[in-house]
Amino acid sequence: EVSSCASRMAKSSFEYVRSFETEEKCLPNTWIVVRIDGKGFHKFADAHGYEKPNDKRALDLMTKAAEVVMDEFRDIKIAYGQSDEYSFVFKKDTNLYNRRSVKLMTNVNSLFASSFVYYWSQYFAEVKLRYPPSFDARIILYPTNKNLRDYLSWRQADVHVNNLYNTTFWSLVLKKGLTNTEAEERLQRTLASDKNEILFSEFGINYNNEPEIFRKGTTLVRTKVKSSTDEISKKGIEELHCDIIKEKFWKEHKDILEPYS
Amino acid sequence: EVSSCASRMAKSSFEYVRSFETEEKCLPNTWIVVRIDGKGFHKFADAHGYEKPNDKRALDLMTKAAEVVMDEFRDIKIAYGQSDEYSFVFKKDTNLYNRRSVKLMTNVNSLFASSFVYYWSQYFAEVKLRYPPSFDARIILYPTNKNLRDYLSWRQADVHVNNLYNTTFWSLVLKKGLTNTEAEERLQRTLASDKNEILFSEFGINYNNEPEIFRKGTTLVRTKVKSSTDEISKKGIEELHCDIIKEKFWKEHKDILEPYS
Amino acid sequence: EVSSCASRMAKSSFEYVRSFETEEKCLPNTWIVVRIDGKGFHKFADAHGYEKPNDKRALDLMTKAAEVVMDEFRDIKIAYGQSDEYSFVFKKDTNLYNRRSVKLMTNVNSLFASSFVYYWSQYFAEVKLRYPPSFDARIILYPTNKNLRDYLSWRQADVHVNNLYNTTFWSLVLKKGLTNTEAEERLQRTLASDKNEILFSEFGINYNNEPEIFRKGTTLVRTKVKSSTDEISKKGIEELHCDIIKEKFWKEHKDILEPYS
Amino acid sequence: EVSSCASRMAKSSFEYVRSFETEEKCLPNTWIVVRIDGKGFHKFADAHGYEKPNDKRALDLMTKAAEVVMDEFRDIKIAYGQSDEYSFVFKKDTNLYNRRSVKLMTNVNSLFASSFVYYWSQYFAEVKLRYPPSFDARIILYPTNKNLRDYLSWRQADVHVNNLYNTTFWSLVLKKGLTNTEAEERLQRTLASDKNEILFSEFGINYNNEPEIFRKGTTLVRTKVKSSTDEISKKGIEELHCDIIKEKFWKEHKDILEPYS
Repeated sequence: EVSSCASRMAKSSFEYVRSFETEEKCLPNTWIVVRIDGKGFHKFADAHGYEKPNDKRALDLMTKAAEVVMDEFRDIKIAYGQSDEYSFVFKKDTNLYNRRSVKLMTNVNSLFASSFVYYWSQYFAEVKLRYPPSFDARIILYPTNKNLRDYLSWRQADVHVNNLYNTTFWSLVLKKGLTNTEAEERLQRTLASDKNEILFSEFGINYNNEPEIFRKGTTLVRTKVKSSTDEISKKGIEELHCDIIKEKFWKEHKDILEPYS
Repeated sequence: EVSSCASRMAKSSFEYVRSFETEEKCLPNTWIVVRIDGKGFHKFADAHGYEKPNDKRALDLMTKAAEVVMDEFRDIKIAYGQSDEYSFVFKKDTNLYNRRSVKLMTNVNSLFASSFVYYWSQYFAEVKLRYPPSFDARIILYPTNKNLRDYLSWRQADVHVNNLYNTTFWSLVLKKGLTNTEAEERLQRTLASDKNEILFSEFGINYNNEPEIFRKGTTLVRTKVKSSTDEISKKGIEELHCDIIKEKFWKEHKDILEPYS
Repeated sequence: EVSSCASRMAKSSFEYVRSFETEEKCLPNTWIVVRIDGKGFHKFADAHGYEKPNDKRALDLMTKAAEVVMDEFRDIKIAYGQSDEYSFVFKKDTNLYNRRSVKLMTNVNSLFASSFVYYWSQYFAEVKLRYPPSFDARIILYPTNKNLRDYLSWRQADVHVNNLYNTTFWSLVLKKGLTNTEAEERLQRTLASDKNEILFSEFGINYNNEPEIFRKGTTLVRTKVKSSTDEISKKGIEELHCDIIKEKFWKEHKDILEPYS
Repeated sequence: EVSSCASRMAKSSFEYVRSFETEEKCLPNTWIVVRIDGKGFHKFADAHGYEKPNDKRALDLMTKAAEVVMDEFRDIKIAYGQSDEYSFVFKKDTNLYNRRSVKLMTNVNSLFASSFVYYWSQYFAEVKLRYPPSFDARIILYPTNKNLRDYLSWRQADVHVNNLYNTTFWSLVLKKGLTNTEAEERLQRTLASDKNEILFSEFGINYNNEPEIFRKGTTLVRTKVKSSTDEISKKGIEELHCDIIKEKFWKEHKDILEPYS
């Protein structure tokens, strides 16, 4: 008991170390975006035989993990994912964790990571997960609706540019037998129109007919679901693969931005 | 192709949103501690039938996940775990991720979380993981060796206080049939010596003979392992359950603090 | 020359200490408010015989110092002062000092402080400045026009509450001979209406006829001044003592908020 | 009274704007350095006829302002000044303003600025201060004694390099009649030894005999002063112009670093 008494006394004499912790809070009345990114996912994709240029299973698994996050954190109003990244947008006036940025970031991030592993086998039934992946996260504040829309537009424009490139690149490699280096050289300094032309004339691919999930990424929004039995509406999550740059989407989902205009 | 051109142009017009990101770096020449904590692990423990007061499988799984982290991040010099938390100490002069705090924190955190799920079945062979867990993380800077040792002492003193309480509490509940409330009341305002006495006189338990992993937590350090075949030494990770408050441990592991004294 | 060579070499070997500096920037697209506050100005006011409850000379000197600041920093769109404080509002899209918060804060603050001393004798011709005063400063970010207006309204509402109290308090002390303690007790738990009544019935003062500079504080805005000779408009600073809580002011000064609505 | 009631109600409805303020604190157990720098002091020096290459009056005025700061803030253990800058070192365990960085920085900065103006005429009796100067400030944290000494060494090495250059440059301009451009060209790519040689052979100046205040800057430390009358020791401030890079100074002033070794 001597030792335990000492321990308790010691504990209090050590407790000053808590004062070294910080507690930064997000500026009030700003949109909070948490974006997670796969770390070393080129290598991860190769190690697990991801299909090129897009692996539908991988995208669906990412979206499944994102849905777990949205289910847990009800103040997320919209999420947008593409490739190995996902962005989660908390409502401007969320008070979750007192808006402490580190809490928001790390809880979203770790839940996403553990969900990715948890649901792996549902999407990659025949592929063993060879090692646990990691993701980094960042938190970004946007003061206005326009800034937030521009952020999401930026991520979606990124998909377009990358996916057109990748689709052409992998067509050259997989269907024409070019080496990676040859395909890279072929595409150097080509415009979007050039890539569209290559796809069409050499591979009979009309890029605009490619699956929307590849061209537009995945947008998750909350929807009211009418329960048939008791007429009480419940919130569900809807998965969309549409343009979120233009006005149309935002007119159809006014509830996302409207209260804060 | 018009649309893709627009997209590319759009992309650049949106890119200003990057300027809203921040890049805080850890003060140079300070110890960097990243501590992860299970979120809602009382509920998680109940949902998965954790043994009371300590579940060896759970502690070993935590340590396995910590070892994955230490394997990946070679600048971690020591890690200390107990209950549902683990602390990772990066060397004072690490330059990993340019000392960007968010990068350090979220990469450690997500790798820990995904490893926890990845290795679950190795430790809980007969218990299905019912849902993906999450962990929060924080990053704390300590300027001196003394501050760092006090931090680790604080965590280890915490184990002692909690474990003595929990061991007594669960003895009363599981072996004596008290309700949780009755056990709580019985222990209110008791000293460490009182709890030791209850354990000894009512349950024949000498607390000091309880397994060290429960009383001392788990310390991970790097060790040189001599490979028998080629005499080249490799770094391994050693798992200890010893006192890290007193001098003895630090004398035996001078390499942890010495270069920075 | 040996020593100077050593010095130069030494200098480069010391230069690593620069890496300990930080450079936090204000979130883009937010209003930046720098507020300065006199430190220990109760004592300062007593030491320099400030008139009670308001000293017009002191307010005018504060405003003079604020005008120096506005002259120097052209991105300040509006300033608001009362008592021993002044708030400066930089336009949302200022790029001054790359929006580095410490630079903005300390340059405004020190210029205000040095101007206060520099112009002292113009306002307090017969009072010697007995010691150099200091001011603290803070920087606050407001994402929306509404938040900014609410901030300014908060400061102006503060004037009202304080000035009504002070006017009554000092009437009781100076005109009725109450001690400070007696006056305090008399005013404890009185409403605004009570204070108005005391002023009117005991001192014949209609509070609403008190000078606006005391009741409303001082608002500085930029105005176009027509130069008579060459018809070229120049920017000047206008001093107002009006309500800035209600719509009227903002309708008459649309240029302050408009570009950012 | 209606309006004042509204005002008071309004005040509370506006008060939420306070939540936008932040309160960053300096990491505990680290040296806190506040450095102030004159803003635009090349122009300021020209406007006030500063002597070249060094103006003793200006240096003494800077030191006077620094002494006011040290008198006010007793937790400053040492200050070091040169040219238009001054560094103030708060003791590692200061709790002034709860270690809030903005408070420390802006109070030191504004007191320095107002003192500079306040004491101007004592040092520049025949030169009218033409406009109020401003200073920026920064705050830097150093975890170890070595880091702190290296910081101060860095500033002193900076004096040496600059002063040797300036002494030679202004000798060429003022005594030899070179234009500024000619003098610059002459000194391009010269070593310290070259400059010493120019000074000696062309101007008969032995650089090492130049006044120490110009070559070493000014160090302010606290000293015990024995009051002759009552034998009670009081703290005074001592002004030194010595080397603070080498051990000697620190051995003679052990009290500065010792408690924190």
